[in-house]
Amino acid sequence: MASTELTFESREAHRAWLGSQAALPRGFRVGTAAFEFVPSEVPKPARMTLTVIATDTPTPSFAAVFTRNAFPGAPVLIGRRRLAEPTLSAILINNKISNVCAPGGEATAERLCESLAEVLSVSSQQVLPCSTGVIGWRLPLEPMLAALPRAVEALAAPSILPAADGIVTTDLYAKIRRADLEGGSIVGIAKGAGMIEPNLATLLVYVLTDLAVPRAELRAMLSRAVDASFNRMSIDSDTSTSDTVVALSSGQLPCSDLAAFEVALTRVCTDLAEDVARNGEGVRHVLRVEVQGAPSEAVARAIAKSVVNAPLFKCAVAGNDPNVGRLVQAVGKYVGAHQPGLDLSRTAMFIGGIPIVKNGEFMLDPGKEQALVAHLREAELYASVPSADGVFKPPVRFPPHERAVEIRIELGIGSAKSTVIGVDLTHEYVSENADYRS
Amino acid sequence: MASTELTFESREAHRAWLGSQAALPRGFRVGTAAFEFVPSEVPKPARMTLTVIATDTPTPSFAAVFTRNAFPGAPVLIGRRRLAEPTLSAILINNKISNVCAPGGEATAERLCESLAEVLSVSSQQVLPCSTGVIGWRLPLEPMLAALPRAVEALAAPSILPAADGIVTTDLYAKIRRADLEGGSIVGIAKGAGMIEPNLATLLVYVLTDLAVPRAELRAMLSRAVDASFNRMSIDSDTSTSDTVVALSSGQLPCSDLAAFEVALTRVCTDLAEDVARNGEGVRHVLRVEVQGAPSEAVARAIAKSVVNAPLFKCAVAGNDPNVGRLVQAVGKYVGAHQPGLDLSRTAMFIGGIPIVKNGEFMLDPGKEQALVAHLREAELYASVPSADGVFKPPVRFPPHERAVEIRIELGIGSAKSTVIGVDLTHEYVSENADYRS
Repeated sequence: MASTELTFESREAHRAWLGSQAALPRGFRVGTAAFEFVPSEVPKPARMTLTVIATDTPTPSFAAVFTRNAFPGAPVLIGRRRLAEPTLSAILINNKISNVCAPGGEATAERLCESLAEVLSVSSQQVLPCSTGVIGWRLPLEPMLAALPRAVEALAAPSILPAADGIVTTDLYAKIRRADLEGGSIVGIAKGAGMIEPNLATLLVYVLTDLAVPRAELRAMLSRAVDASFNRMSIDSDTSTSDTVVALSSGQLPCSDLAAFEVALTRVCTDLAEDVARNGEGVRHVLRVEVQGAPSEAVARAIAKSVVNAPLFKCAVAGNDPNVGRLVQAVGKYVGAHQPGLDLSRTAMFIGGIPIVKNGEFMLDPGKEQALVAHLREAELYASVPSADGVFKPPVRFPPHERAVEIRIELGIGSAKSTVIGVDLTHEYVSENADYRS
Repeated sequence: MASTELTFESREAHRAWLGSQAALPRGFRVGTAAFEFVPSEVPKPARMTLTVIATDTPTPSFAAVFTRNAFPGAPVLIGRRRLAEPTLSAILINNKISNVCAPGGEATAERLCESLAEVLSVSSQQVLPCSTGVIGWRLPLEPMLAALPRAVEALAAPSILPAADGIVTTDLYAKIRRADLEGGSIVGIAKGAGMIEPNLATLLVYVLTDLAVPRAELRAMLSRAVDASFNRMSIDSDTSTSDTVVALSSGQLPCSDLAAFEVALTRVCTDLAEDVARNGEGVRHVLRVEVQGAPSEAVARAIAKSVVNAPLFKCAVAGNDPNVGRLVQAVGKYVGAHQPGLDLSRTAMFIGGIPIVKNGEFMLDPGKEQALVAHLREAELYASVPSADGVFKPPVRFPPHERAVEIRIELGIGSAKSTVIGVDLTHEYVSENADYRS
């Protein structure tokens, strides 16, 4: 799904590439400010970063897609209301605490919007708040208000890199993707992967452009692009309370080809989605599962998702063990539970292009087993490094390559297809998410 | 859900207790035989155990519930046909290879039934085959045929323990539960937990009784008992291709109270279900999630299952980290996706009886955090033991206690409720299921 086939030898090389991608579209500035504080619920020192993305002039062309989790964060509730506003001027993002189901959460978020609006000389309804981090704690309002002016002072063009870094918490690396067209650009940043935050990952994506796309079209396009990208990715099947994807146009350049714009927007989103998957601390293999010959796209997607959400298969991939039986079991589990009438007798399956199932029966032999192991090893991002205390940390903080374990399932029933991105299940994931420090 | 509150100091103490539970009901014998062989697909030496459960006389009173996985094993396909037979005489179980989607799989299984039937002087349709193990390999027919006579020679009463041991593969310990009533008994054995077999776990359960329950009633009762027990358990959300629950009555004693029989059967099944959960090699905490005040039992059960299937919450429990935010996120994910109209504003949540959410908002403080950690530590089965090579193995092969992490979710919407059993997600699980030896 990634449109590139990049490799990097070091974190420095990756940072240099990020810098080459970071030029802000015209009409935007970003700034950050960090500070220390002590949460009242668990009194241990913590660090929060505020990130501000501001437009030079308020814009009517903004779009946002939010989580469907039934316990949405206060910023999500406010964000949904902001969609009705005529214009937007700024986005205020904080990490560390996600402001979900916290007493007084919405009032606190609105207070922060007011404060930023005042400094920027706009109205609070033109500010979109976003939060990511621990669910259950309240935002530290006073320290945040005190830090806001510093974030505004830091507002600058022409690089988006401070924002890409500012929203990151335990991601392995910052993520930027861009498309250049018609003399302008689309630049997107993302934070999160379903498993990287010990305090819950949240997917936050901000896509900025200087090309003038009308509000209604931008919203329709974003909705389709999100469906084609972030909704075709599953790290661990968990859906955050705070997932947010925002697109903003400063409108500074004419856009003559909306279709080309949408293609570019979709590519930026699909590349970011794969970046997010690959950058999880617990990820040692990215999986790309393509289901073809399905009766509908929805069934194809659901089958693909059932594979990337199958813990036993994910563990096998982590160990470079081509356990094809678990692949079959994952497909059968979904179909048996949700599509019991589906005829699987013509099913064929391939890993790395190597056929392993034909007409619903296995075709395995020792030579094939070795070829499958080789494909898995080739897709491995790094070797696991155990430590004496049992805590596994990844040894690299950059993407060494963009390869994936390629899985193809042909049902031979219809003509619909879908591709979904997923990851393996590793010791690094467990170490990251089981807080042994409690 | 377990009706007992047992504790054991050692494997020997647990084995002694198993022995005290193992008396076979009248009219049954069990026997096993093991042998070495080399699978053709991956030519490394392997060991297979055959287990035979035989009735003294063929019985019409037999029932079975099978997996709904759409790639069912050959034994499952045959088993469904056997349900139409007038009587059953024996069950033939093998481990190591599950005979799923293997070329010629059904013919091989029928050939084995023929061979056993011949030795027992019954017909092959009176033999029920069961297989568990690797999906993708073919059964080694010749060595199995050669070993069958030894299994028959080993047939003996009065203990079910050889069968409880025979069907076990990587379970931490054998599992037996019994109920004594009306001068007879119901005795059940089980193998499996969703995560213990590197080659896929399968749930196999055999319940034997000497009380005469008519065939139709036994089938209806088993179906209800399975729904109340094994279907309210989720280890890792994976559904095997081979899950099988069988009940057999030798009919040797009259049963005057069918209602009491069903209560006892259900208790045996629910106790075995919790044993299966607790005995997974990767399990360090059992979770018991009760959802109350739901609009329907189905919704209550689905919400409870979404909690026990949430990887981030499970990892937190593994680390004794009372990450209540992830509990809220798991509930919200399910409701948001499947019951979007449900009003969660009256939701209350408790861990270990300690209130953490009231009217949809968190109530957290440092003292409460400590109490929550204490509850998690109290429920821990054993401390994780990391090793230099990064492979985690559990240090105990018996259940030290039968405590669980007690989670209660009150929706305040209706009056339906459901309790589901689950487990945490640990390094031991990953070590068990990521085959580093490939």
